Formats: sequence, C-alpha cells, structure tokens
Amino acid sequence: MPKVRPKNAFYAQSGGVTAVINATACGVIETARKHQNKIGKVYAGHNGIIGALSEDLIDTSRERPRAIAALRHTPSGAFGSCRYKLKSLEENRREYERLIEVFAAHNIGYFFYNGGGDSADTCLKVSQLAETMGYPIQAIHAPKTVDNDLPITDNCPGFGSVAKYIAVSTREASFDVASMAKTSTKVFILEVMGRHAGWIAAAGGLASSADTEIPILILFPEVRFDRQKFMNKVDQLVTKHGYVSVVVSEGLKGPDDRFLSDQGLQDAFGHAQLGGVAPVVAGMVKQDLDLKYHWAVADYLQRAARHIASRTDVDQAYAIGREAVRMALKGENAVMPAIQRVSNKPYKWKIVKAPLHKIANVEKMMPKTFITRDGFGITDKCREYLTPLIKGEDYPPYRNGLPQYIRLKNKLVTKKLKEQFIV
Amino acid sequence: MPKVRPKNAFYAQSGGVTAVINATACGVIETARKHQNKIGKVYAGHNGIIGALSEDLIDTSRERPRAIAALRHTPSGAFGSCRYKLKSLEENRREYERLIEVFAAHNIGYFFYNGGGDSADTCLKVSQLAETMGYPIQAIHAPKTVDNDLPITDNCPGFGSVAKYIAVSTREASFDVASMAKTSTKVFILEVMGRHAGWIAAAGGLASSADTEIPILILFPEVRFDRQKFMNKVDQLVTKHGYVSVVVSEGLKGPDDRFLSDQGLQDAFGHAQLGGVAPVVAGMVKQDLDLKYHWAVADYLQRAARHIASRTDVDQAYAIGREAVRMALKGENAVMPAIQRVSNKPYKWKIVKAPLHKIANVEKMMPKTFITRDGFGITDKCREYLTPLIKGEDYPPYRNGLPQYIRLKNKLVTKKLKEQFIV
Repeated sequence: MPKVRPKNAFYAQSGGVTAVINATACGVIETARKHQNKIGKVYAGHNGIIGALSEDLIDTSRERPRAIAALRHTPSGAFGSCRYKLKSLEENRREYERLIEVFAAHNIGYFFYNGGGDSADTCLKVSQLAETMGYPIQAIHAPKTVDNDLPITDNCPGFGSVAKYIAVSTREASFDVASMAKTSTKVFILEVMGRHAGWIAAAGGLASSADTEIPILILFPEVRFDRQKFMNKVDQLVTKHGYVSVVVSEGLKGPDDRFLSDQGLQDAFGHAQLGGVAPVVAGMVKQDLDLKYHWAVADYLQRAARHIASRTDVDQAYAIGREAVRMALKGENAVMPAIQRVSNKPYKWKIVKAPLHKIANVEKMMPKTFITRDGFGITDKCREYLTPLIKGEDYPPYRNGLPQYIRLKNKLVTKKLKEQFIV
Repeated sequence: MPKVRPKNAFYAQSGGVTAVINATACGVIETARKHQNKIGKVYAGHNGIIGALSEDLIDTSRERPRAIAALRHTPSGAFGSCRYKLKSLEENRREYERLIEVFAAHNIGYFFYNGGGDSADTCLKVSQLAETMGYPIQAIHAPKTVDNDLPITDNCPGFGSVAKYIAVSTREASFDVASMAKTSTKVFILEVMGRHAGWIAAAGGLASSADTEIPILILFPEVRFDRQKFMNKVDQLVTKHGYVSVVVSEGLKGPDDRFLSDQGLQDAFGHAQLGGVAPVVAGMVKQDLDLKYHWAVADYLQRAARHIASRTDVDQAYAIGREAVRMALKGENAVMPAIQRVSNKPYKWKIVKAPLHKIANVEKMMPKTFITRDGFGITDKCREYLTPLIKGEDYPPYRNGLPQYIRLKNKLVTKKLKEQFIV
C-alpha cells in the first residue's frame, strides 16, 4: 500500500505586525514539526496571503530549530505581512480558484491565518472552500492585533506588549516632566495607537498605581473631545501637582465627529499635513492655558517594542500558535484558539476553541464601565482587566548593546504553476 | 578641644534630566555617607539651584540606604531640576550673596552640581566664591547631558542610554516597516533630540550592524538639508530594499539655515504649530515621491527610558558621582570628574580630573570624520566610538509589570533665614 504523503500547511501573517506575532509563528512551526506524520511542511506566505496568490511560498523546513526558536523573541512579521482583504466569492471567484490551484499544487491541507478581524473573515471564507468549491482544507485563525478588538477571546496577542510599552513609557516620561515642571514643561502629551477603540490609551492609565500616583488624563476615541472640560482638568491637575501627563488616542474625535488629527494642519505652502493628534492638542494647551508642553508620537515604536514585551503576551502568543496546530490535528475547521481568563488573582488563563463565524467582522469595543465617569480615566475594573496582561518581562538576547532579532533565510519553494497571478 | 563639625554638602541637578542622573546622585550620596567625618549631610537643592536660592534644601540623610540605592535605577531628577542660569557676579551680585547666606546658615562647604555646559559655568562661578566673596567652598561639577556635548570627557552620562534607546527603537521599527512594505509603509521617520549636535541621531545608525543590515538615512543637524539629494537617496533605498528608515535630528536645518521644524506649520485657523521636524519631512516624502510613510517623535521617551538604559552609562553615571565626592575629599575645587577612554577592545575607561574652566561654555561638536561623505550615515570611526557606550543592559526591578522607580520623601530642612528670596 503506498504511503499517503501528509498534507502541508500554509501559514500567513496579516495586517499590522506586532512585537509577538512571530511568537505565534514559532508556536505553529515548532508544534507542526512535532507531528510530521500528520503535517508535512509548513509553508509561509511571503507577504501574507499575497504569497499564496502569487505562489511565493517560504519553505520553513529550511530553517534550523534555533532560528525558529528565535522567532519567539523577534518582533515584526518574519515572512512579511500585507494589508489585503480577499473579496467575497461572488465578487472575485478567480482569487479563490487561484488559492485552490496553489494549495493543490503544493499539497496544502491546513491553512493558518494570523491576523485581526478582517483576516478572520478571510480565514472563514477559506474554511468554506470545501463546501463552496470542493477543495478540502482546514482553516484555523490565530488572533493577533494590538487593537485588542476581537470578540470572544479575553484579549488579543500583541496588545499586552503595546500596553506594557505605553504604561512604562508614560510612567517614565511623567517622572521626567515632574522634575522639570518648576521652570519648564508642565504638560506632556503622548499619542498612542487605537483608531476605533481606546484599549491602548487605557493602558496609559496603568502608569499611575497605588504606590506611584501620577496625574494622567486619557483622551479616548470613545469619548468626544470637549475642549473646555479638558482644559479645566489640565489646569486643575497642574495647579495641584505641578504637571500632568496626557495620553491621547490617534482616534480622538471632536464634537463634530471628525478626527482631531484631520483638523487641517498645513505647511507654509498650504499643503495638508497628515496626522499627529498630539501636536494639535499641544497647540490648544498653549493657546488656552499658555502652559509649556512637550509631545511625543510613539507610532511603530509601540507595537515593535519587543525589548519591553509583556511575558504574559509572549506566552499567550506562543500558546495560540501551538493550539492552532493542535486544533488542526484534531480535525477542526473554521475555528480560532481564544484566550479565556480563568481567574484574576492569581491570573490564570487557558486556550479555548471559538467558532470563526462569531469572530469575523465583529469589533469588541471597550466597555463603558472601563472609563471613569468624567471620561478621562480608567476604572478599577479596567485596571483589574489590564494589569495581568502587562505582567512579566521577557527580554530578548543582546549583542553589543543591541537586541538580536532573527532574520530567516526565507527560501522560496520552486513554483509549480505556469500562470502568474497579478495581485 | 571642641570637635569641629564637618561641613555639609549641597548637591543639585540642573537642566534636562536623563535616565541616569539619579545614578550620579546615588554615587554622590552613598560615597559621602562613607565619609561622615569629613562630609556631614548632603542637602539636595529642591528644583536645582533654585532650591539653594530659596533655601529649599532637601535633607537626604532622612532617606534610608535602600531608597538611596534605588536612585541608581530611577530615571528623572529625584530632587527636581531647573532651567536657570546664574548671571555673572557683576550682573547679579545679590544672587551670589544669597547663595553664601544659605550656604553659611547650613554650614555648607561642598557644592556638587550635576548638569551640562551651562551648569559647568555656574559651578565655576561658585568655585570662585572664596576668591571673589571670601566664602570658602569647594565646587565640583558632575557632568550630565544627553547631548554628549561637553569637552574633555570622552562622553557624557545620560547620552549612552538615549543612544541605546534610539538604536534599539530604530532597529525594532525597521523590522516592522520591512514586514509591511509590500503593501503599506515604505518610509519610517523617527525624530530624535539634539538641537546642535548630531550625537543622538548618529546612534540611530547603530541599529544597522554587520549581522543585521538595515537601510537607514540620518539627517544630522551638522549637515544642511538638501531636499533633492535626500529624496534621491530615499528613492534609491526603497527601490533596493523595499523600505527605508530615516532618523532625523530635531535640529535639522534647511539651506536657509532655519530649522525645518520652524518652517511654519499652521492649523486651520492659521495658528502656528510648534515643532516636529518628522511630520515636515514626512510631508515632503509624500509630496515628492508619493510613498507611504509613518513617523514618530520620541521626545521625553528617549531620555527617560531607564527600562532600556545602557549598563555602561549607568556604571559611569554612578562613578562620576562617587569620584566627585572623592575629589572633594582630596581638597579639589573647580574640577569635574571626566570619563577617559583607555581602550576600545576591550572597552576600558577611567575617571580623570578635568579643570572646570576648560569645560564651562565649551560645546563639543561631532567630528566631521564621524559622518559619511554623502552626509547621511555614520563612519566606522563613529561606530567604534558609540558602540561601547550602549553596551550592557541594566534592568530596573518590576512589580505588576511596571518598573519600580523610587520617589524619595524629600523632607526639607527647616529654614534659618528670615528673608525670602524670589527667584
């Protein structure tokens, strides 16, 4: 009897990358390698799903165990990510046909997709290929998003490390401002990510704790900006403490429901300048209160900051990858490993199975009970939720003062299809 | 024979604070405590030299050894700093008379001033009080500045940690951009401190090393911005690598010798917006090359980032404080402990004595040989100079995911003078 060749797996990273998405890749590849009787090779999409369409498949079996292990401490997307959403079957059937051609050519029977809400939708569509197009495949979604906005899962891998970075940075900058406030800066403004939900901004509130109180105002995307009310708060805290730190979400909106960052910054030639809500808020503080300010925009620094990643986050990201493979081995399809919080003190969590159709295209907003009544702070409930997510440090190795992040060889598999596919 | 009461010491922090200025305070106080037969108490100026003028003296002897030890891992200025420069004796004699009244009232015979070039000048003036006003005092300057612009000393405490932060952050963000470049961001721009000298910007160049090459362009304040030349480079690197990281100094100047950040950003109402050279450069990239970009402004985050401080920097900052006291014990006046590089491989350094009059008001610029011929990178010589300064990690302790930084009790000494002094 001829031996049946085990199916190969396809793994791809999607959307904005994080400090720990490679830890999930590490979990997927290391676990798959332990089950080579059931999963042949793991092929990674070069630049995400685009790699599947263009048949640019990275052969991860060409990488040494040590290189794969180093993914656990390497930020960014080791195989390249992309911002590309598959259309529906009705809108672009050719894309799905192409996927199946590529999968069939490379004997791919497992599809692991590592991304956020949009990617969950793509993964769901792929999971239905057996039904819709007759190609047998198991599709498992591995959650990843700094925005922390996926439903069912208690939190999303990637978020805890951003939260830790923002909490640590806000604490450090606040100590700095406190020492300068007598003759210099009194208001420090830090702009953070999170266009729709205030999870990351909320993490700034953790900088202040019972043993280290810091005057912090948070400007959430969920709360319409009230300039007068905000200025009153700033004035009040500066009078009391000598200084204040402001953590502002890039998604802050004014009473007119427009992003504050879009309010029309122009250069001397009248060209529109993109982005930066921090300088806008700083300008208002200057104008209304004439207080000295400094502002910072963390941007990619926050989501790439593997050097100060949360150990909880790294552990969970790895576990998500591992469990995704285990679910595949159990024959699951159209599911996502989700994090379930078992207890708060001590913090315990486990991975459970969530049906993908309940994840795709659903956005989890921050509960109203997480924001203080005045709209500028986080409640104890929010603090209880966030604190375990930033717990623990997981430092990468260093050489010559710099973190040693791995770059894989990323050898491409020889193409088998004659037709090129232009994405 | 009545026992002579040993003279007390005055210590103050001056100017912009750093991740390690408190390590110097730690070195001063711990060393002084070992010599209580010669140095009575260490009084710290509340908010720097202003505390001396207003007689707001913090009694550091009220702090436990463990609290003082924790200064070593706490960023910012534990006693408050200030931006305040004493005028000359001729211009404001009353200030010096006041200093002497306060010093005399509190039996102060040692003056430790922890700051940059301006502070060295103040320290020098104080060192001359015996000569000019008949008050016997020994003044020792302890160098501190992220700008790394003091002469004689090989480098300045505070700089190494900023350099490490910028190198690490640039590496991390570059990994991020590299993974996104296929469909999204191709140019990442990080704005860093250093209005006059490009030392900090140069540190961005360390992100790329022989084992981890990264396309980086540095915009130094020493090199006039040539828009066309810069865009050619960006275009070239994006074509070759798919992306590029740009590290731009806040002090970048255009051909007209004006700061690029001052080129007149305005909000929709025509109000000038202060600062941010990164968004200006980003806007130009968009305009000239139509490439997707992201930009970040690190601001205080970079100089407060004790969580990723350089161990070399922490060790040197502490040693500077310790040696400042030892010099005082040897009867020195008008000197500064300076770092001398003994060898590069292995990196060895020692503390030597530098005469203060050679430090005050002298700015050390970056040597021309540290910038590559094209004006956008660092030379091997620069790399050799910078590398040991960012070497080693020195992590603070954490609780609940956050660094535990000390806040001292900062008990003020009872005032002895009747007259108030308004600064």
